Formats: sequence, structure tokens, C-alpha cells
Amino acid sequence: MSELHKGLEGVLVAESSLSSIDGEAGRLVYRGYDIADLAEQASYEEVLYLLWRGELPTAEELAEFESSIAEERAVDEDVLATTQTLADAGETPMAALRTGASMLSAYDPDADADPEDRDATVRKGRRLTAKLPTLIAAFERARLGEDPVDPHPDLGLAANFLYMLTGEEPDDVAAETMDQALILHADHGLNASTFTTMVIGSTMADVYSGVVGGIGALSGPLHGGANQDVMEALLDLDESDLGPINWVDQLTDEGGRVPGFGHRVYDVKDPRARILQQRSAELADSTGDDRWYDYTTTIEEYLTDEKGLTEHGIAPNVDFYSGTVYYQLGIPVDTYTPIFAMSRVGGWVGHFLEYQEENRLIRPRARYTGDDSAEFVSIKDR
Amino acid sequence: MSELHKGLEGVLVAESSLSSIDGEAGRLVYRGYDIADLAEQASYEEVLYLLWRGELPTAEELAEFESSIAEERAVDEDVLATTQTLADAGETPMAALRTGASMLSAYDPDADADPEDRDATVRKGRRLTAKLPTLIAAFERARLGEDPVDPHPDLGLAANFLYMLTGEEPDDVAAETMDQALILHADHGLNASTFTTMVIGSTMADVYSGVVGGIGALSGPLHGGANQDVMEALLDLDESDLGPINWVDQLTDEGGRVPGFGHRVYDVKDPRARILQQRSAELADSTGDDRWYDYTTTIEEYLTDEKGLTEHGIAPNVDFYSGTVYYQLGIPVDTYTPIFAMSRVGGWVGHFLEYQEENRLIRPRARYTGDDSAEFVSIKDR
Repeated sequence: MSELHKGLEGVLVAESSLSSIDGEAGRLVYRGYDIADLAEQASYEEVLYLLWRGELPTAEELAEFESSIAEERAVDEDVLATTQTLADAGETPMAALRTGASMLSAYDPDADADPEDRDATVRKGRRLTAKLPTLIAAFERARLGEDPVDPHPDLGLAANFLYMLTGEEPDDVAAETMDQALILHADHGLNASTFTTMVIGSTMADVYSGVVGGIGALSGPLHGGANQDVMEALLDLDESDLGPINWVDQLTDEGGRVPGFGHRVYDVKDPRARILQQRSAELADSTGDDRWYDYTTTIEEYLTDEKGLTEHGIAPNVDFYSGTVYYQLGIPVDTYTPIFAMSRVGGWVGHFLEYQEENRLIRPRARYTGDDSAEFVSIKDR
Repeated sequence: MSELHKGLEGVLVAESSLSSIDGEAGRLVYRGYDIADLAEQASYEEVLYLLWRGELPTAEELAEFESSIAEERAVDEDVLATTQTLADAGETPMAALRTGASMLSAYDPDADADPEDRDATVRKGRRLTAKLPTLIAAFERARLGEDPVDPHPDLGLAANFLYMLTGEEPDDVAAETMDQALILHADHGLNASTFTTMVIGSTMADVYSGVVGGIGALSGPLHGGANQDVMEALLDLDESDLGPINWVDQLTDEGGRVPGFGHRVYDVKDPRARILQQRSAELADSTGDDRWYDYTTTIEEYLTDEKGLTEHGIAPNVDFYSGTVYYQLGIPVDTYTPIFAMSRVGGWVGHFLEYQEENRLIRPRARYTGDDSAEFVSIKDR
């Protein structure tokens, strides 16, 4: 009997040229470009172009690509109405995003395109990427009893999202921070949500089905939900008056674990955490409140130096620092995972396109552990 | 470098006691019971009980289980309103089902349950299974400009579905045929949609996310879309006046392939096809129109005897016979895949529950084939 690969750890299921993770060195590249360079010097739209087309755009190509996304930001009134209905019913932001994204397909001008029509899939993927921020912002406003804010045609994707959320144009620090956060989360190999999108795509299903599946997988607490867990833990610490070190001691004495440490593919500090930590410091400078930066940095140092966590290959992951960054941007805690989705959709669409190009249906097997042969007894005789 | 397992063919990703396929013998069992015995002697509800709880129910247990499903058939007015909106927008039945199923979570009384709360997941899975037929029937009626039909509390799941579709109680042959079709499609190892549901579940996401992902995967033409392809081909044959043999010759001469033959895991005739072929004969007897039965049987014999297809391990699969069965029941062709979903949800929920019981995040790797190191050049210098 063949070997059981539970969780598919280390199993190679596809070839990909989108992103590569060196877990020992703590290095992440998108198509060869170091994530730190991209976060520092590129925009999220530039990174989408890179992921989907394989190379960085010229200024002219980027301008055209940016407008193609900006033009597609509005969502149909029917979808906004359902978003309001879901908010009134008390739906969670991630489930509302799943339903909203699914509903968008009914209004896609390429809805009838053949599944093999690659150009149509590219356009649909771009529309989804353009519209997810609009859905997330509209839902948040609907919960607050506010009307949705129409997209701002002159703002980039990140700045426009903050604008649609609040109705006010964000300052440069906020817009740049949001943009960097989107870049850092855009792709990360075959994580569970990206792999979900690929499995769905392998049936030659529509990219809407793929992205809706990705949102579902990302909603799980073992995947996209972790940044929210980190922030909730830090809010608990903030309310406790224990200070970070005593709070960690108390938590671990009670058998708890500090969320945001450890990752299936990194043995050292996640390079994305390193960059977000820096943004957190800048946000603290700009607001004059360094509490959140201080909590996270103190906890990381304590767990690393005193508790020797990194010696055991457990180090801060991206979720440990993203939560406080979003918190300092004034974003509601349960909207962090939807923001993860509006970034990761770049990777979902990229892998969907790449896999369908040389498609093979993904259909593994299970080792059967049940009865081999049972005799059927009619219900009268049971 | 490790081996590449594209499509995960033959790779064991989990243990399961739900169903087992012997591809060489053409045998399918659910928890040890032969599919032919279940189709002949059990009801779809009995099979759901078997898949989810591991054993066949007593008469009393079954009665209780049947009412627990029957009570949950109604869907919220908001969801029916969105179903009408989607029909008006020209959405496809599968995409409408994906959106409708996703929207249901907002109205689930266990919406706030912890992901580890297994009993809540069982209840949610049961509600989804009870409500998918209602969504499918309501969408079909909405397209026709008809109001939805309230579920009939005294009919079984299969008969009630036909009742909600037409507003009339089905006769025994129709009800039994529908029930058998649901049993035959309820589970089939780790096919792409079931595996999608498992990958989503492995993040400890909600079962709504899992089932919505499963619907998306099933919508792909390489998976659930195939029964529709078969029927469309047979309708083409019927219009051509060529007769089945000349039609096959012409199709294959033009480089075409008869859909509904061949399967990743069967080398011989799919046991489900065998049973549906018999139902097709009975329906032909009951309606007096044996055209569809005749077409399929003649084509199978011709491809097998003359073209020697089965010598090459290619034989009729379940889709080859299910299409004509649904057609003879008067069901619209583009609703066949949604019917597949309302049956397979039994397997999706069963595997979701089974996998989460000893959960491990599913996170494979890709072999990176892109640039290893590229130097970032600022956009000004590109």
C-alpha cells in the first residue's frame, strides 16, 4: 500500500513560477523579485501585473493596467442590495464576501465565455480583484447603517479601499501602509486557499467558483483567521494591565499559546513580518501611540530570547504584525481576513490561470479504512 | 528534488471509511454496502444516515432523521428574493446554487458556533442538505416566472424535490428513479469537489464554505458538467436523423469524442451506469418512448464491440446514463449538475466531518520554475 500524505506536507502537486519561499533563509520572492524590494518600491497593481503576466510593467503598461482595474470597481446595485440584506441578517464579513463574490458572476459581461477562453478568464479575474474591495467596504458601511461610497477613479486600489471604507481620502502613510500590506499578502505558494482555487480550476470551472472557494478556505481560523486572533489577544493584553511579559507568562502558564508564531514553511522569522514590523513602527511615530508596536516587539524578543522559541524553529509569522498595522489604520478587527482575501485574490487568479494552462484534473485517493463488504439487511429486519 | 504528483493521481491524502471504489471490478461500496443493494433497497435519507453516522438506521432512527431533514427544507425569504434576482439577471443554475448556498449561512441558527463544535457542524450540514433542493427548484421556477412551491412535509427528499419543481406530486416511478439517482451520486471517494470541501475544511472553516467550494468544483465541465454534455450530444443525435451508429461514426471521423466514456478510477463499466441504464429502460416502458434508452444502449454496444473501447479500459461512466434518466423525468438539461450537487452534498458533508475529526491543514508545495533571483529596477528605468 502506498504512503499516506496527510496534509500533503512537502508533496509537489504542480509546477509554478509565481512565488518561491525559502523557509530556512526566510526569503520570499514573486517571480524572482524579493518581497522586500517589491513592498518598498512597487505598488500592489504593479505586483498584480507581475504575478499575472510574468514581468514588471513599463510606466505606460502600468497606467493602462491601473485604469483597467479602476474602471471595474463598481458593483451592480443588486449585489449591493444583497450586501445590505446580509449585514442586516448579522452575517460575518468573510461569509458576506463569499456570497457577494459569488453573486458577481451573474453580472459579468463574459459570463457565457467558454471555460477554455483564457482572455475571458483574465478579464474575469481582473474584475474580481477590482470588486472585492468594493464589496468589503460596502458591507462594513452597511453594518454601520451607512450608504456605500462610490469608488474614487483617481486613487490606487489600496487608497481607494480606505476611501470607500471611510468616505475620506487617506493620508500618505495610511495609503502606503495599506498598499504594502496588500503586496505582502498577494501570493505565498500553494497555501490552503490558493490550492483550493487550483483544485476547483482543475475541473475547468469558472474563476468565480475558484475565488469563492479561496475565500471559503481563507475564512478558516487555521489560515486567514490568524491575524484576527493575534489582535484579539493583544487587545486582551491591553485590557489586562499585566504588561506584555507578565501577560505572556500568565497565558503560557495556563497552557495557552501566543498566536502568530510558527508557520508550516518558515523555520525563521517570516520576511513579511519583518516589513510589517517596520510599518507598525512608522504608524506609531505618525500617531504618537506606540503601544501596539511596543507589545508586539517586546513579546517577540521575550519569546525569542527568554523562551528560546526560534531555537525550535518557531518564529513570528506575517499575522503577528499585520493585525496591529490594520488596527492602527482604524480597520475593524473582523475585517482583517477580508483584507487578506482582497490581496490574496492576486495569487488565486494567478495560480488559477497558470494551472489551467496545462491543466490536469486534481483527484487524489483516500486509503479506505471502512468495511470491505457488509451485507445489506432490509429496514424491517434491523 | 521530489517527484511531481500532478493531478495527485493515486496519491493517498487521507484515510476514509465512507466509500471505496474497486476500479478493476467495477464495484462501489458506501461503508461496505454495495451500491446496487443501496439503490435497490434503501432511500436517499437512509444512505445519508449511513454516510454520516457509519451505520444503517433502524426504522425509528430513520423516521426521526427524515423529519429532522424535512423540517429544515424551507429557506429564508431573503434567499428566495436573491434567487429571483439571479434568475432575472440570467445567472446559470449552478452559479445561482453556489450563491444561494453561500447566503444560507446568514440565517443558520448555529452561525456563531465554534468551528470545533462538531454537533453544530452536523446540524449545519443537515440543513444544507435539506435546503439545496429547495434552492434548485426555486431558481428553476423563478426563471419561468413562477412562484416557488413550499416544501411538502410528507414527501421524501427526492419526491419533494420533483414536487417543488413542478407543483405536482410525482408518480412512483419518477420518485423512485430520482431517489436512486441521488443514492448513486451521493459519494465517490475523493473526487475533485469532495477534495475541495476537505481542503477548505482543513482550515477549520465552516461547512458552508466547504459545500460552496464543492459546488464550485462540481460546476466544472471536467467534473459535474459531463452529464449535461452527454444529453446535449444525444439531443444533437436526435435532431440529426443519422441514427446512433452513423452519428457516432460522423462524430469520431470529425475527431470528436462521445461524452460519458472513461473515468479516472474505473477500468470497466461504472456500476452506477449499470443501474441507471436499467432505470432508463423502466422509464422508457412507463412513457412508451424508448428513443433515449435505445440511443445510449446502441452507442455503448457499438463503441464496445466494434470500436473495442472497453479493451482500452474505457467504458461508460455514470454520466452516460444519468442524463437520459433526468431527461425522461422532464428536468431541464442545465439543472442536471445542480441535481448532482444536491446528491453529492451527502458525501461533501460526510468527508468534511470525517476529516475535521482528525484534522491536519492541507498545504502542498509547488515546484518553483521561475526566476530564482531578479534584480528590481525602478519603474522610471524600465
